[in-house]
Amino acid sequence: MVASQAEIMKHAISEEYLIFMRLALDEARLAAAAGEVPVGAILIAEGAIIARAHNQREALQDPTAHAELIAIRQAASHLGSWRLTGSALYVTMEPCAMCVGAAILARVERIVFGAWDAKAGACGSIMNIPEERRLNHRLEIVGGVLEEESRELLQGFFQGLREKLPLNANR
Amino acid sequence: MVASQAEIMKHAISEEYLIFMRLALDEARLAAAAGEVPVGAILIAEGAIIARAHNQREALQDPTAHAELIAIRQAASHLGSWRLTGSALYVTMEPCAMCVGAAILARVERIVFGAWDAKAGACGSIMNIPEERRLNHRLEIVGGVLEEESRELLQGFFQGLREKLPLNANR
Repeated sequence: MVASQAEIMKHAISEEYLIFMRLALDEARLAAAAGEVPVGAILIAEGAIIARAHNQREALQDPTAHAELIAIRQAASHLGSWRLTGSALYVTMEPCAMCVGAAILARVERIVFGAWDAKAGACGSIMNIPEERRLNHRLEIVGGVLEEESRELLQGFFQGLREKLPLNANR
Repeated sequence: MVASQAEIMKHAISEEYLIFMRLALDEARLAAAAGEVPVGAILIAEGAIIARAHNQREALQDPTAHAELIAIRQAASHLGSWRLTGSALYVTMEPCAMCVGAAILARVERIVFGAWDAKAGACGSIMNIPEERRLNHRLEIVGGVLEEESRELLQGFFQGLREKLPLNANR
């Protein structure tokens, strides 16, 4: 049986998703090691990695220092342009409203994410901002890539935090 | 006739809104003078101005350099904390998804804005993110403060841009 060209393309695209998501997971582990909620992001333009970042909210005491926002700013700085047209943002957790909004402003073409975020996810979980037809930019969304690895990393981090709490912290 | 305490309070709050919005308008004018879309923002904590900023997307070539996001980052840096609990953000135009998202992450208490933004406003125009009950932070929204001044500043800017375009630009 001969695979159709569409099947080969689909396979090739999935393979690319896995490769870049593994790099985003490496970034997420750097966040965990620094005591930050483990989320990592990678930004790809014309096949090249132009930004790698992880959540640094605590280290920088910056409420906007999510992995995605840092990666978008790094990428714009690298290209010398606020337009990241044709780029792809890989992130280990579903982006929040701020991060999806930033990706739309930057004309990112596609967001590929790992774990869904039932608390603040804005790509289908509690909101679906990319589906808003009145926005002047279309953003393709691919969710659930290496979902389990991303989720386990997050769950392990929060489990660790709970274990460090004093016994009466939940009373 | 004696004004009720509620009426006096309402009056006092409105007066405060006008004072801070005028300062945000001054920031918006700085943006216009620099050739940027004229939007300005002021951040207030405990009655003090802790950040002033204007849109700098073109100057910095940073897609996230909206007035609100810069003001939030400045304020966090000033306080040495990502938590801007109890603060108020004044901005001359209705915030987009990125900026409302950032204000929610930063635990801003109230956003007071000027002009409505029918193209990307996320506080009632095309989305209403603060109304999303599943988010873990409530954000009070007051829209339309000195609306006309803010809108005229924006309209004047875009009118000026159109006049600079070559005659065949719209063909």
